[in-house]
Amino acid sequence: MTFANIGSLGTVPGKRDELVTLLTRPSAELAAIGCLLYEVGVSDDEPDTVFVAELWESADAHRASLDLPSVQAAIAEARPLLSGVMGGTRFEVVGSPLR
Amino acid sequence: MTFANIGSLGTVPGKRDELVTLLTRPSAELAAIGCLLYEVGVSDDEPDTVFVAELWESADAHRASLDLPSVQAAIAEARPLLSGVMGGTRFEVVGSPLR
Repeated sequence: MTFANIGSLGTVPGKRDELVTLLTRPSAELAAIGCLLYEVGVSDDEPDTVFVAELWESADAHRASLDLPSVQAAIAEARPLLSGVMGGTRFEVVGSPLR
Repeated sequence: MTFANIGSLGTVPGKRDELVTLLTRPSAELAAIGCLLYEVGVSDDEPDTVFVAELWESADAHRASLDLPSVQAAIAEARPLLSGVMGGTRFEVVGSPLR
């Protein structure tokens, strides 16, 4: 079942764009491991936050991605940019009016 | 710029699946007006909540969709199913590691 992972990542003031650059770095590995969609975004209302909306083939695919060396390296690289304020939601997709 | 609208809709206990059915009713109008993605989902952790993850060609396309008679009718039909507890986030997409 398609799994959705939506997140908001608070950044240290001024580091938002650096985190965007990191998160949007091309990665063929993510698609190979079952990532269907990975949208990175920002909002003028929250200048120190980066948003992600991800769809995965399954919750297991998402979990497995976190063990990829490249993802572990990105997480380590991102850590100093993060404020520690995080939010998000996860759910199983059950349908769409577009399909 | 692609616009993301992520929402969580609290339902009256026992009405979640009815809301899912309503929100996943096929609609060619949404795509025609600029809806790129509209995923409806649930989570075992929150049995009285329906989640939506939407991508639109723009914030304007999303706003315009709310004026569609079919969407207005669906909102009215959904109202008695809702608990009033709502959440969500909106952002502009700036990139993806998959593109």
